[in-house]
Amino acid sequence: MGKIICVGLGPGDQELMSVRSDRLIRSAKTIAFFRKKGRAGQARTIVDGMLQQDIIEYAMEYPITSEIDFLSTEYKVVLAEFYNNWALRLQQIAKEGDVIVLCEGDPLFYGSFMHLHIRLNGKVHLEVIPGITGMSGCWTALGEPFCWGDDITSVVMGTICSEKLREAVSLGDALVIMKVGAHIPKIKKALLEAKKLDQAWLIEKGTMNDEKIVKLSEFTLDKAPYFSIVLVRGEGRRP
Amino acid sequence: MGKIICVGLGPGDQELMSVRSDRLIRSAKTIAFFRKKGRAGQARTIVDGMLQQDIIEYAMEYPITSEIDFLSTEYKVVLAEFYNNWALRLQQIAKEGDVIVLCEGDPLFYGSFMHLHIRLNGKVHLEVIPGITGMSGCWTALGEPFCWGDDITSVVMGTICSEKLREAVSLGDALVIMKVGAHIPKIKKALLEAKKLDQAWLIEKGTMNDEKIVKLSEFTLDKAPYFSIVLVRGEGRRP
Repeated sequence: MGKIICVGLGPGDQELMSVRSDRLIRSAKTIAFFRKKGRAGQARTIVDGMLQQDIIEYAMEYPITSEIDFLSTEYKVVLAEFYNNWALRLQQIAKEGDVIVLCEGDPLFYGSFMHLHIRLNGKVHLEVIPGITGMSGCWTALGEPFCWGDDITSVVMGTICSEKLREAVSLGDALVIMKVGAHIPKIKKALLEAKKLDQAWLIEKGTMNDEKIVKLSEFTLDKAPYFSIVLVRGEGRRP
Repeated sequence: MGKIICVGLGPGDQELMSVRSDRLIRSAKTIAFFRKKGRAGQARTIVDGMLQQDIIEYAMEYPITSEIDFLSTEYKVVLAEFYNNWALRLQQIAKEGDVIVLCEGDPLFYGSFMHLHIRLNGKVHLEVIPGITGMSGCWTALGEPFCWGDDITSVVMGTICSEKLREAVSLGDALVIMKVGAHIPKIKKALLEAKKLDQAWLIEKGTMNDEKIVKLSEFTLDKAPYFSIVLVRGEGRRP
Protein backbone atom coordinates (compact mmCIF):
# COMPACT_ATOMS: atom_id res chain seq x y z
CA MET A 1 0.00 0.00 0.00
CA GLY A 2 1.45 3.33 -1.06
CA LYS A 3 1.07 6.72 0.55
CA ILE A 4 -0.83 9.76 -0.64
CA ILE A 5 1.55 12.67 -0.33
CA CYS A 6 0.39 16.20 -1.03
CA VAL A 7 3.31 18.43 -1.91
CA GLY A 8 3.07 22.19 -1.53
CA LEU A 9 4.44 23.83 -4.66
CA GLY A 10 4.90 27.34 -3.26
CA PRO A 11 4.04 30.55 -5.11
CA GLY A 12 4.97 29.41 -8.60
CA ASP A 13 8.73 29.69 -9.08
CA GLN A 14 10.12 26.12 -9.22
CA GLU A 15 13.11 27.07 -7.09
CA LEU A 16 10.81 28.24 -4.31
CA MET A 17 9.43 24.80 -3.58
CA SER A 18 10.97 22.93 -0.67
CA VAL A 19 13.85 20.53 -1.11
CA ARG A 20 11.51 17.71 -0.06
CA SER A 21 8.72 18.65 -2.48
CA ASP A 22 11.31 18.98 -5.26
CA ARG A 23 12.69 15.50 -4.58
CA LEU A 24 9.27 13.87 -4.32
CA ILE A 25 8.11 15.43 -7.60
CA ARG A 26 11.26 14.51 -9.51
CA SER A 27 11.08 10.89 -8.38
CA ALA A 28 7.29 10.51 -8.62
CA LYS A 29 5.85 7.57 -10.54
CA THR A 30 2.24 8.78 -10.20
CA ILE A 31 0.91 12.30 -9.75
CA ALA A 32 -2.54 13.85 -9.45
CA PHE A 33 -3.60 17.50 -9.62
CA PHE A 34 -6.73 19.62 -9.86
CA ARG A 35 -7.50 21.66 -12.95
CA LYS A 36 -10.34 23.29 -14.77
CA LYS A 37 -11.58 21.46 -17.85
CA GLY A 38 -9.74 22.65 -20.93
CA ARG A 39 -6.83 24.15 -18.95
CA ALA A 40 -3.35 22.80 -18.34
CA GLY A 41 -3.78 23.52 -14.63
CA GLN A 42 -1.66 25.90 -12.58
CA ALA A 43 -0.17 23.17 -10.36
CA ARG A 44 0.74 21.00 -13.36
CA THR A 45 2.27 23.99 -15.15
CA ILE A 46 4.53 24.78 -12.19
CA VAL A 47 6.19 21.32 -12.35
CA ASP A 48 6.75 21.38 -16.12
CA GLY A 49 10.10 19.83 -16.95
CA MET A 50 10.54 18.19 -13.53
CA LEU A 51 8.69 14.92 -14.19
CA GLN A 52 9.93 11.46 -15.18
CA GLN A 53 9.16 10.47 -18.76
CA ASP A 54 6.98 7.46 -17.93
CA ILE A 55 5.03 9.14 -15.14
CA ILE A 56 1.30 8.39 -14.75
CA GLU A 57 -0.77 11.58 -14.46
CA TYR A 58 -4.30 12.00 -13.13
CA ALA A 59 -5.93 15.32 -13.92
CA MET A 60 -8.76 15.83 -11.42
CA GLU A 61 -11.00 18.06 -13.52
CA TYR A 62 -13.52 20.19 -11.66
CA PRO A 63 -17.08 19.62 -12.84
CA ILE A 64 -18.29 22.59 -14.87
CA THR A 65 -20.31 24.63 -12.40
CA SER A 66 -20.52 28.03 -14.06
CA GLU A 67 -24.24 27.57 -14.68
CA ILE A 68 -24.92 26.63 -11.05
CA ASP A 69 -25.21 29.25 -8.30
CA PHE A 70 -22.08 29.18 -6.16
CA LEU A 71 -24.06 29.32 -2.92
CA SER A 72 -26.70 26.77 -3.92
CA THR A 73 -27.15 23.31 -2.45
CA GLU A 74 -26.77 21.88 -5.93
CA TYR A 75 -23.27 23.37 -6.23
CA LYS A 76 -22.28 21.79 -2.94
CA VAL A 77 -23.70 18.41 -3.94
CA VAL A 78 -21.90 18.39 -7.30
CA LEU A 79 -18.58 19.33 -5.71
CA ALA A 80 -18.97 16.94 -2.78
CA GLU A 81 -19.57 14.09 -5.21
CA PHE A 82 -16.51 15.15 -7.22
CA TYR A 83 -14.29 15.11 -4.11
CA ASN A 84 -15.82 11.84 -2.87
CA ASN A 85 -15.10 10.16 -6.18
CA TRP A 86 -11.51 11.34 -6.34
CA ALA A 87 -10.87 10.40 -2.73
CA LEU A 88 -11.99 6.86 -3.57
CA ARG A 89 -10.01 6.74 -6.79
CA LEU A 90 -6.81 7.97 -5.15
CA GLN A 91 -7.22 5.32 -2.46
CA GLN A 92 -7.44 2.70 -5.21
CA ILE A 93 -4.50 4.14 -7.11
CA ALA A 94 -2.37 4.24 -3.94
CA LYS A 95 -2.66 0.44 -3.69
CA GLU A 96 -0.09 0.29 -6.51
CA GLY A 97 2.35 2.76 -4.87
CA ASP A 98 2.80 6.33 -3.70
CA VAL A 99 0.68 9.05 -5.29
CA ILE A 100 2.01 12.60 -5.27
CA VAL A 101 -0.76 15.22 -5.26
CA LEU A 102 0.36 18.65 -6.47
CA CYS A 103 -0.99 21.71 -4.68
CA GLU A 104 -0.08 25.36 -5.27
CA GLY A 105 1.08 27.35 -2.27
CA ASP A 106 0.74 25.71 1.13
CA PRO A 107 -1.71 22.77 1.05
CA LEU A 108 -3.39 23.23 4.45
CA PHE A 109 -3.80 27.00 4.03
CA TYR A 110 -6.95 27.45 1.90
CA GLY A 111 -5.69 24.67 -0.41
CA SER A 112 -7.93 22.58 -2.65
CA PHE A 113 -6.31 19.39 -1.41
CA MET A 114 -7.99 19.87 1.98
CA HIS A 115 -11.25 18.58 0.49
CA LEU A 116 -9.53 15.28 -0.22
CA HIS A 117 -7.62 15.37 3.07
CA ILE A 118 -10.75 15.29 5.24
CA ARG A 119 -12.12 12.43 3.15
CA LEU A 120 -8.92 10.36 3.24
CA ASN A 121 -7.64 11.09 6.75
CA GLY A 122 -7.46 7.89 8.78
CA LYS A 123 -8.15 5.68 5.75
CA VAL A 124 -4.75 5.83 4.04
CA HIS A 125 -1.23 6.88 4.95
CA LEU A 126 -1.46 10.63 4.28
CA GLU A 127 1.39 13.11 4.27
CA VAL A 128 1.47 16.85 3.60
CA ILE A 129 4.60 18.81 2.72
CA PRO A 130 4.07 22.51 3.48
CA GLY A 131 4.94 25.18 0.94
CA ILE A 132 5.64 28.88 0.72
CA THR A 133 2.24 30.58 0.51
CA GLY A 134 1.12 32.60 -2.49
CA MET A 135 0.78 35.65 -0.23
CA SER A 136 4.40 35.31 0.81
CA GLY A 137 5.41 35.23 -2.84
CA CYS A 138 3.47 38.48 -3.24
CA TRP A 139 4.96 40.38 -0.30
CA THR A 140 8.42 39.20 -1.28
CA ALA A 141 7.74 40.53 -4.78
CA LEU A 142 6.79 43.88 -3.22
CA GLY A 143 10.33 43.92 -1.85
CA GLU A 144 9.75 45.40 1.59
CA PRO A 145 9.01 44.08 5.07
CA PHE A 146 5.36 43.09 5.35
CA CYS A 147 4.62 43.12 9.08
CA TRP A 148 6.48 44.18 12.17
CA GLY A 149 6.59 43.64 15.94
CA ASP A 150 3.06 43.76 17.31
CA ASP A 151 1.24 44.19 13.99
CA ILE A 152 -1.98 42.24 13.52
CA THR A 153 -2.09 40.51 10.15
CA SER A 154 -5.57 39.82 8.78
CA VAL A 155 -6.04 37.40 5.93
CA VAL A 156 -9.48 37.76 4.37
CA MET A 157 -11.23 36.70 1.20
CA GLY A 158 -12.75 39.25 -1.17
CA THR A 159 -15.81 36.99 -1.22
CA ILE A 160 -16.96 37.81 2.34
CA CYS A 161 -19.71 40.32 3.11
CA SER A 162 -18.93 44.07 3.23
CA GLU A 163 -19.45 44.30 6.96
CA LYS A 164 -16.99 41.55 7.89
CA LEU A 165 -14.53 42.87 5.32
CA ARG A 166 -14.73 46.35 6.85
CA GLU A 167 -14.16 44.94 10.33
CA ALA A 168 -11.12 42.93 9.25
CA VAL A 169 -9.66 45.82 7.27
CA SER A 170 -10.02 48.15 10.21
CA LEU A 171 -8.53 45.71 12.74
CA GLY A 172 -5.57 44.49 10.67
CA ASP A 173 -2.34 46.49 10.55
CA ALA A 174 -1.09 44.30 7.72
CA LEU A 175 -3.71 43.02 5.29
CA VAL A 176 -3.91 40.18 2.83
CA ILE A 177 -7.02 40.04 0.66
CA MET A 178 -7.28 36.92 -1.46
CA LYS A 179 -9.89 35.78 -4.01
CA VAL A 180 -10.10 39.32 -5.26
CA GLY A 181 -11.76 38.59 -8.63
CA ALA A 182 -14.92 40.63 -9.16
CA HIS A 183 -14.84 42.08 -5.64
CA ILE A 184 -12.52 45.00 -6.42
CA PRO A 185 -15.17 47.73 -5.87
CA LYS A 186 -16.16 46.32 -2.46
CA ILE A 187 -12.51 45.95 -1.45
CA LYS A 188 -11.63 49.49 -2.56
CA LYS A 189 -14.56 50.89 -0.60
CA ALA A 190 -13.57 49.08 2.61
CA LEU A 191 -9.94 50.21 2.26
CA LEU A 192 -10.94 53.78 1.49
CA GLU A 193 -13.12 53.95 4.59
CA ALA A 194 -10.23 52.66 6.71
CA LYS A 195 -7.86 55.19 5.05
CA LYS A 196 -5.74 52.33 3.73
CA LEU A 197 -6.47 52.48 0.00
CA ASP A 198 -3.36 54.54 -0.75
CA GLN A 199 -1.16 51.91 0.88
CA ALA A 200 -2.76 48.97 -0.98
CA TRP A 201 -1.08 46.97 -3.75
CA LEU A 202 -2.59 44.56 -6.24
CA ILE A 203 -0.21 41.72 -7.08
CA GLU A 204 -0.73 39.09 -9.69
CA LYS A 205 1.51 36.02 -9.90
CA GLY A 206 4.05 37.15 -7.30
CA THR A 207 7.56 35.64 -7.92
CA MET A 208 6.55 34.35 -11.36
CA ASN A 209 8.06 35.60 -14.59
CA ASP A 210 4.93 37.45 -15.57
CA GLU A 211 4.25 39.01 -12.16
CA LYS A 212 2.34 42.28 -12.15
CA ILE A 213 2.32 44.84 -9.36
CA VAL A 214 0.14 47.97 -9.35
CA LYS A 215 -1.14 50.34 -6.73
CA LEU A 216 -4.74 49.34 -6.11
CA SER A 217 -5.83 52.98 -6.30
CA GLU A 218 -4.48 53.11 -9.86
CA PHE A 219 -6.19 49.89 -10.96
CA THR A 220 -9.27 51.04 -12.80
CA LEU A 221 -10.98 47.79 -13.77
CA ASP A 222 -13.76 46.28 -11.68
CA LYS A 223 -12.37 42.80 -12.04
CA ALA A 224 -8.95 41.33 -11.36
CA PRO A 225 -7.76 37.79 -12.06
CA TYR A 226 -9.17 35.48 -9.36
CA PHE A 227 -5.76 34.63 -7.95
CA SER A 228 -4.60 38.22 -7.54
CA ILE A 229 -3.85 39.32 -4.01
CA VAL A 230 -4.27 42.72 -2.40
CA LEU A 231 -1.65 43.60 0.23
CA VAL A 232 -1.33 46.43 2.73
CA ARG A 233 1.90 46.44 4.73
CA GLY A 234 1.96 46.91 8.48
CA GLU A 235 3.93 49.75 9.98
CA GLY A 236 4.42 48.44 13.53
CA ARG A 237 6.90 49.19 16.27
CA ARG A 238 10.55 49.04 15.30
CA PRO A 239 13.81 50.38 16.69
CA MET B 1 30.50 44.55 -5.12
CA GLY B 2 28.61 41.53 -3.80
CA LYS B 3 24.96 41.18 -2.89
CA ILE B 4 23.33 40.80 0.49
CA ILE B 5 20.93 37.91 0.19
CA CYS B 6 18.63 37.00 3.03
CA VAL B 7 17.53 33.38 2.79
CA GLY B 8 14.36 32.19 4.51
CA LEU B 9 15.12 28.95 6.33
CA GLY B 10 11.55 27.81 6.88
CA PRO B 11 10.19 26.26 10.08
CA GLY B 12 13.33 24.34 11.05
CA ASP B 13 13.49 21.08 9.10
CA GLN B 14 16.37 21.42 6.59
CA GLU B 15 14.35 19.73 3.84
CA LEU B 16 11.64 22.38 4.19
CA MET B 17 13.80 25.22 2.97
CA SER B 18 13.44 26.19 -0.66
CA VAL B 19 15.63 24.75 -3.37
CA ARG B 20 17.09 28.24 -3.88
CA SER B 21 17.84 28.84 -0.19
CA ASP B 22 19.41 25.38 0.02
CA ARG B 23 21.69 26.08 -2.94
CA LEU B 24 22.71 29.53 -1.72
CA ILE B 25 23.55 28.19 1.76
CA ARG B 26 25.56 25.23 0.48
CA SER B 27 27.63 27.42 -1.84
CA ALA B 28 27.99 30.39 0.54
CA LYS B 29 31.45 31.81 1.21
CA THR B 30 30.22 34.25 3.87
CA ILE B 31 27.18 34.02 6.14
CA ALA B 32 25.72 36.19 8.88
CA PHE B 33 23.00 35.42 11.40
CA PHE B 34 21.43 36.84 14.56
CA ARG B 35 21.80 35.11 17.89
CA LYS B 36 21.65 35.73 21.59
CA LYS B 37 24.99 35.98 23.35
CA GLY B 38 26.06 32.61 24.64
CA ARG B 39 23.72 30.69 22.31
CA ALA B 40 24.43 28.83 19.08
CA GLY B 41 21.53 30.66 17.44
CA GLN B 42 18.41 29.01 16.00
CA ALA B 43 19.15 30.05 12.39
CA ARG B 44 22.74 28.81 12.59
CA THR B 45 21.61 25.53 14.14
CA ILE B 46 19.17 24.89 11.30
CA VAL B 47 21.97 24.95 8.68
CA ASP B 48 24.33 22.69 10.65
CA GLY B 49 26.13 20.35 8.28
CA MET B 50 25.25 22.33 5.13
CA LEU B 51 28.15 24.81 5.14
CA GLN B 52 31.48 24.80 3.30
CA GLN B 53 34.51 24.08 5.49
CA ASP B 54 36.24 27.42 4.93
CA ILE B 55 33.12 29.58 5.27
CA ILE B 56 33.38 32.94 7.04
CA GLU B 57 30.68 33.37 9.70
CA TYR B 58 29.44 36.56 11.33
CA ALA B 59 27.33 36.07 14.44
CA MET B 60 25.30 39.24 14.97
CA GLU B 61 24.87 39.03 18.74
CA TYR B 62 21.99 40.98 20.22
CA PRO B 63 23.10 43.41 22.91
CA ILE B 64 22.07 42.14 26.33
CA THR B 65 18.88 44.02 27.12
CA SER B 66 17.31 41.98 29.89
CA GLU B 67 17.99 44.75 32.43
CA ILE B 68 16.39 47.41 30.18
CA ASP B 69 12.61 47.84 29.96
CA PHE B 70 11.36 46.46 26.64
CA LEU B 71 9.15 49.51 25.98
CA SER B 72 11.69 52.15 27.06
CA THR B 73 13.41 54.63 24.80
CA GLU B 74 16.73 53.29 25.99
CA TYR B 75 15.86 49.83 24.66
CA LYS B 76 15.00 51.29 21.27
CA VAL B 77 18.22 53.30 21.16
CA VAL B 78 20.40 50.32 22.04
CA LEU B 79 18.75 48.12 19.42
CA ALA B 80 18.74 50.81 16.74
CA GLU B 81 22.47 51.28 17.23
CA PHE B 82 22.99 47.53 17.03
CA TYR B 83 21.10 47.31 13.71
CA ASN B 84 22.80 50.45 12.35
CA ASN B 85 26.22 49.00 13.09
CA TRP B 86 25.49 45.67 11.48
CA ALA B 87 23.93 47.29 8.43
CA LEU B 88 27.19 49.23 7.96
CA ARG B 89 29.36 46.18 8.60
CA LEU B 90 27.43 44.00 6.15
CA GLN B 91 27.76 46.72 3.51
CA GLN B 92 31.54 46.66 4.08
CA ILE B 93 31.70 42.86 4.04
CA ALA B 94 29.67 42.71 0.82
CA LYS B 95 32.43 44.62 -0.96
CA GLU B 96 34.37 41.34 -0.98
CA GLY B 97 31.50 39.24 -2.34
CA ASP B 98 27.99 37.96 -1.60
CA VAL B 99 26.85 37.71 2.00
CA ILE B 100 24.13 35.21 2.86
CA VAL B 101 22.05 36.27 5.86
CA LEU B 102 20.18 33.40 7.52
CA CYS B 103 16.65 34.02 8.77
CA GLU B 104 14.23 31.50 10.29
CA GLY B 105 10.80 31.22 8.70
CA ASP B 106 9.91 33.80 6.07
CA PRO B 107 12.18 36.89 6.27
CA LEU B 108 9.63 39.61 5.47
CA PHE B 109 6.96 38.16 7.81
CA TYR B 110 7.90 39.40 11.30
CA GLY B 111 11.55 38.46 10.58
CA SER B 112 14.54 39.99 12.36
CA PHE B 113 16.26 40.66 9.04
CA MET B 114 13.70 43.39 8.29
CA HIS B 115 15.56 45.73 10.64
CA LEU B 116 18.60 45.43 8.39
CA HIS B 117 16.48 45.50 5.24
CA ILE B 118 15.10 49.00 5.86
CA ARG B 119 18.62 50.24 6.63
CA LEU B 120 20.22 48.67 3.54
CA ASN B 121 17.46 49.05 0.96
CA GLY B 122 18.66 51.23 -1.92
CA LYS B 123 22.28 51.22 -0.70
CA VAL B 124 23.32 47.72 -1.75
CA HIS B 125 22.01 45.00 -4.03
CA LEU B 126 19.52 43.29 -1.68
CA GLU B 127 17.68 40.06 -2.29
CA VAL B 128 15.21 38.12 -0.15
CA ILE B 129 14.33 34.46 -0.66
CA PRO B 130 10.98 33.69 0.99
CA GLY B 131 10.54 30.69 3.25
CA ILE B 132 7.83 28.51 4.73
CA THR B 133 6.58 30.32 7.83
CA GLY B 134 6.90 28.91 11.32
CA MET B 135 3.09 29.00 11.64
CA SER B 136 2.77 26.83 8.54
CA GLY B 137 5.19 24.33 10.07
CA CYS B 138 2.89 24.29 13.11
CA TRP B 139 -0.41 23.77 11.30
CA THR B 140 1.18 21.10 9.12
CA ALA B 141 2.37 19.41 12.32
CA LEU B 142 -1.23 19.49 13.57
CA GLY B 143 -2.05 17.39 10.53
CA GLU B 144 -5.39 18.87 9.52
CA PRO B 145 -6.59 21.67 7.22
CA PHE B 146 -6.08 25.04 8.89
CA CYS B 147 -8.49 27.38 7.13
CA TRP B 148 -11.23 26.98 4.56
CA GLY B 149 -13.20 28.92 1.97
CA ASP B 150 -14.25 32.25 3.42
CA ASP B 151 -12.50 31.90 6.79
CA ILE B 152 -10.78 34.98 8.17
CA THR B 153 -7.31 34.16 9.47
CA SER B 154 -5.99 36.48 12.19
CA VAL B 155 -2.31 36.48 13.04
CA VAL B 156 -1.68 38.25 16.35
CA MET B 157 1.10 38.52 18.87
CA GLY B 158 0.59 37.50 22.50
CA THR B 159 2.30 40.78 23.37
CA ILE B 160 -0.61 43.03 22.33
CA CYS B 161 -3.09 44.49 24.82
CA SER B 162 -6.04 42.39 26.04
CA GLU B 163 -8.58 44.49 24.21
CA LYS B 164 -7.00 44.16 20.76
CA LEU B 165 -6.34 40.50 21.41
CA ARG B 166 -10.00 39.94 22.27
CA GLU B 167 -11.11 41.76 19.12
CA ALA B 168 -8.80 39.71 16.88
CA VAL B 169 -9.75 36.44 18.55
CA SER B 170 -13.44 37.16 18.12
CA LEU B 171 -13.10 38.23 14.46
CA GLY B 172 -10.78 35.45 13.26
CA ASP B 173 -12.19 32.08 12.25
CA ALA B 174 -8.67 30.66 12.12
CA LEU B 175 -6.21 32.05 14.65
CA VAL B 176 -2.46 32.20 14.90
CA ILE B 177 -1.06 33.63 18.13
CA MET B 178 2.71 34.10 18.09
CA LYS B 179 5.16 35.37 20.74
CA VAL B 180 3.21 33.46 23.34
CA GLY B 181 5.85 33.44 26.09
CA ALA B 182 4.55 34.78 29.39
CA HIS B 183 1.19 35.80 27.89
CA ILE B 184 -0.50 32.42 28.29
CA PRO B 185 -3.02 33.59 30.95
CA LYS B 186 -4.12 36.60 28.83
CA ILE B 187 -4.39 34.40 25.71
CA LYS B 188 -6.39 31.72 27.52
CA LYS B 189 -8.78 34.34 28.87
CA ALA B 190 -9.40 35.86 25.42
CA LEU B 191 -9.97 32.43 23.88
CA LEU B 192 -12.27 31.34 26.71
CA GLU B 193 -14.42 34.45 26.27
CA ALA B 194 -14.69 33.77 22.54
CA LYS B 195 -15.54 30.10 23.25
CA LYS B 196 -12.44 29.01 21.35
CA LEU B 197 -10.21 27.71 24.15
CA ASP B 198 -11.26 24.10 23.62
CA GLN B 199 -10.21 24.27 19.99
CA ALA B 200 -6.81 25.83 20.70
CA TRP B 201 -3.47 24.04 20.37
CA LEU B 202 -0.06 25.03 21.68
CA ILE B 203 2.72 23.97 19.32
CA GLU B 204 6.42 24.21 19.97
CA LYS B 205 8.98 23.64 17.20
CA GLY B 206 6.49 22.45 14.57
CA THR B 207 8.14 20.08 12.00
CA MET B 208 11.30 19.76 14.10
CA ASN B 209 12.41 16.49 15.70
CA ASP B 210 11.54 17.69 19.19
CA GLU B 211 8.16 19.22 18.27
CA LYS B 212 5.56 19.32 21.05
CA ILE B 213 1.81 19.62 20.59
CA VAL B 214 -0.64 20.01 23.48
CA LYS B 215 -4.19 21.26 23.85
CA LEU B 216 -3.88 24.76 25.26
CA SER B 217 -6.61 24.00 27.82
CA GLU B 218 -4.42 21.21 29.18
CA PHE B 219 -1.27 23.33 29.37
CA THR B 220 -1.05 24.35 33.02
CA LEU B 221 2.05 26.54 33.12
CA ASP B 222 1.82 30.34 32.90
CA LYS B 223 4.77 30.54 30.57
CA ALA B 224 5.55 28.81 27.27
CA PRO B 225 8.76 29.00 25.24
CA TYR B 226 8.82 32.35 23.40
CA PHE B 227 8.64 30.76 19.98
CA SER B 228 5.64 28.57 20.70
CA ILE B 229 2.55 29.24 18.62
CA VAL B 230 -1.12 28.92 19.52
CA LEU B 231 -3.41 27.80 16.70
CA VAL B 232 -7.16 27.56 16.31
CA ARG B 233 -8.36 26.00 13.08
CA GLY B 234 -11.09 27.57 10.98
CA GLU B 235 -14.21 25.58 10.18
CA GLY B 236 -15.40 27.44 7.09
CA ARG B 237 -17.64 26.53 4.21
CA ARG B 238 -16.85 23.32 2.43
CA PRO B 239 -18.72 20.91 0.18
